Amino acid sequence: MKIKIINTQKLKEKYVKSTIQEYTKRLSAYCKVEYVETKNPAKEISFKSYVIKIKKEGEELSSEQLAEKIEQLGVSGNSNITILLGADNIEADCVLSISRMDIDINILLIIICEQIYRAYRIINNAPYHK
Amino acid sequence: MKIKIINTQKLKEKYVKSTIQEYTKRLSAYCKVEYVETKNPAKEISFKSYVIKIKKEGEELSSEQLAEKIEQLGVSGNSNITILLGADNIEADCVLSISRMDIDINILLIIICEQIYRAYRIINNAPYHK
Repeated sequence: MKIKIINTQKLKEKYVKSTIQEYTKRLSAYCKVEYVETKNPAKEISFKSYVIKIKKEGEELSSEQLAEKIEQLGVSGNSNITILLGADNIEADCVLSISRMDIDINILLIIICEQIYRAYRIINNAPYHK
Repeated sequence: MKIKIINTQKLKEKYVKSTIQEYTKRLSAYCKVEYVETKNPAKEISFKSYVIKIKKEGEELSSEQLAEKIEQLGVSGNSNITILLGADNIEADCVLSISRMDIDINILLIIICEQIYRAYRIINNAPYHK
């Protein structure tokens, strides 16, 4: 599975990038995570990718439900997921809400990485270590 | 307004404590925030305090609705709020959900501080600066 996280905002906080790198490393046993910052997100989305847009008004899933979704995508041959932050004009296969609250973009990115990691630990029936 | 955040878990991550301190400083213009780690949360709750318990199954509010709630509590003479993390046996006036997902406790604490700050910026009609 390849997961590309696309952020249309440029992040200044260094700890976020290092956290993303840390999770990318931990996730390498399960999937390939790529983080991209761009003002032109459409260019970065593969033709066959399943696109998940993050919006507070979207559908809410528990961590277990997200794990199930990722597993199902794999089973049905979708080996390419794109997670979009801040690209309102792009159509998505799924609009996912992390919280009904306005969450700072830096925090949101860390949560997304953590949820992907959590999902793979759930899928693989492995204990969750932070 | 006095806001006490009680966490029954002992945190190891230093960046969380420094983030809480940073928000406490920024919030000092609006309210007094105190962060307490304890295994005996009941002892830390003032008799007249309005208790908000954080649980993923709780009520979901937008940032604007949380701001309204805090403002209303002030108007109705509640000058003392306790926010509880991980004290399942204690009864609360409100059970608040940040997300339906399982969020790491460190991240949850940062979100709570940020939401209180965001609430006071909304109440005071001030632009939001991170």
